[in-house]
Amino acid sequence: MPPLALTMGDPAGVGGEISVRAWQALCGSGPCFVALDDPERLARLGAPVEVVGAPAGAAAVFGRALPVLPVCLAAPARAGEPDPANAPAVIASIERATMLAMRGDVGGVVTNPINKAALYAAGFRHPGHTEFLAELTGVPGREVMMLACPVLRVVPVTIHLALRDAIAALTTEKIVAVGRATAAALRRDFGIAAPRLAVAGLNPHAGEGGALGSEDAAIVAPAVAALRLENIDASGPWSPDTMFTEAARARYDAALCMYHDQALIPLKTLDRDGGVNVTLGLPIVRTSPDHGTAYDIAGKGVASPASLIAALRLAAELAARRSGGSP
Amino acid sequence: MPPLALTMGDPAGVGGEISVRAWQALCGSGPCFVALDDPERLARLGAPVEVVGAPAGAAAVFGRALPVLPVCLAAPARAGEPDPANAPAVIASIERATMLAMRGDVGGVVTNPINKAALYAAGFRHPGHTEFLAELTGVPGREVMMLACPVLRVVPVTIHLALRDAIAALTTEKIVAVGRATAAALRRDFGIAAPRLAVAGLNPHAGEGGALGSEDAAIVAPAVAALRLENIDASGPWSPDTMFTEAARARYDAALCMYHDQALIPLKTLDRDGGVNVTLGLPIVRTSPDHGTAYDIAGKGVASPASLIAALRLAAELAARRSGGSP
Repeated sequence: MPPLALTMGDPAGVGGEISVRAWQALCGSGPCFVALDDPERLARLGAPVEVVGAPAGAAAVFGRALPVLPVCLAAPARAGEPDPANAPAVIASIERATMLAMRGDVGGVVTNPINKAALYAAGFRHPGHTEFLAELTGVPGREVMMLACPVLRVVPVTIHLALRDAIAALTTEKIVAVGRATAAALRRDFGIAAPRLAVAGLNPHAGEGGALGSEDAAIVAPAVAALRLENIDASGPWSPDTMFTEAARARYDAALCMYHDQALIPLKTLDRDGGVNVTLGLPIVRTSPDHGTAYDIAGKGVASPASLIAALRLAAELAARRSGGSP
Repeated sequence: MPPLALTMGDPAGVGGEISVRAWQALCGSGPCFVALDDPERLARLGAPVEVVGAPAGAAAVFGRALPVLPVCLAAPARAGEPDPANAPAVIASIERATMLAMRGDVGGVVTNPINKAALYAAGFRHPGHTEFLAELTGVPGREVMMLACPVLRVVPVTIHLALRDAIAALTTEKIVAVGRATAAALRRDFGIAAPRLAVAGLNPHAGEGGALGSEDAAIVAPAVAALRLENIDASGPWSPDTMFTEAARARYDAALCMYHDQALIPLKTLDRDGGVNVTLGLPIVRTSPDHGTAYDIAGKGVASPASLIAALRLAAELAARRSGGSP
């Protein structure tokens, strides 16, 4: 199995220190990964670092040092102080990791958190990390975000929109497209032969028969019916407040949610072991931790590597299934 | 301490059987309660029943039988089949319990679930149970709903509205009024001297500085500021997705939520021991279980009394604090 590629992320955030801690946790057991990062700054963060010429060299190094494909910074990394001068390196790390994954030189890409504002100032023109990856891999608009923790997988149909705009943006077609991509990914990458999708309603009590809004009957229910016509085991629309109980979660493999917080509130409320962000719909495997740059604690040595470690483990599992091996 | 009054609820729902099971669980330890219900139907559900002439007689009976103040049904109760002929009895049970609480003959009212549709057919003209109680106790429009479980208290500022309508109905004044009522209730009834309120944002990431909607800056933040001017320890607007983690919950006594599912998703996701619905802002103590009539399982003997038992215990605790005793 080729190693995973781990991007630098914003060098002013917690990415470097959690990369080092993830290597410390995984160097004995794997999965093996190679960091596309500045080797000097990683060495200063306390890990033995070895520069490798290509991903294929990572496996021999991983047990004794963090393997690095160098991406050099233009300015010194300062914790909590993003510097637009480093934006080209942040972007280069993502681009190179993606290219290596497209070529099969790495099994998948795991991305450290970036700060969009710092990249925008340097000319970055994508709404976010995930959209950038969809562009780079030739499938713009096909990307679907899943958040996964050991007890729940959620897929928001609308994402970074004001709540008012998310309601306006919701269409039957969009729910069906996201449901289809989710079912396909659960089959191919997660090894679930007949995935069960629970589709949340938009309104309280899924509209209570029309007393609490028309969208559940007019938009969500037809999407469930359309997915079922495609032989996808979709159910709903479910009352959002009762669909994340332990008993309810046992009845589905992923919850399709209508807006950001309907998905992220239950996920982050339940997630004690590190949730993982997985991008479905790409030709490559991509995961990331479910937190941001955390400038407020960067450089203090207190950032938890749990979510990054979970992201690396899940990426290895998905990559193994894609390559036909057992995870 | 006077006993609590437990209403009948919809006789076609699970109310009767969970009343009996709650008495079985509590007859040794208390709190003592008196059911305002049809004694014959309760006896058929398997409890020894004794009719009492007044709430004061309940304590002497409670250890050996379920004390009942009779409210007789017009038609036989059939599980799962609501009968509008019984609506007057359902309403009489609520009215009598409320009157007893207003007079101080009972310490508080615990209500079994009703089915509004069955009551509407019989001429009931209130939007719901809670609004009816606010009318009966002379404080219409002052009622505030709290849901409480051992690890979280949530108070939705808007409740039974379509999501689109909830956004439109949200005002600074409404958030302040609900925050004020919540802080007062936490002080008086819950024994928290300096209650901390965490106010949720409306939009993802609480609006992300305006990139994701204007309401958090325009409506929610001014409410937090106004509450603080009243010396209420309010904070926010917080990003909704991260405010219900275990670490975040340790930093507040109640979360003020902007819409139904923002409050109820985390509460029901976390609630393993029976959440309780508490009505704040009334001159009487009122709690109820956080579930409905559950027609689908009524009469099968499988309904859990956990939420009703939690509601009885919490009502007793609140009543003891109001009367100046220790809970």
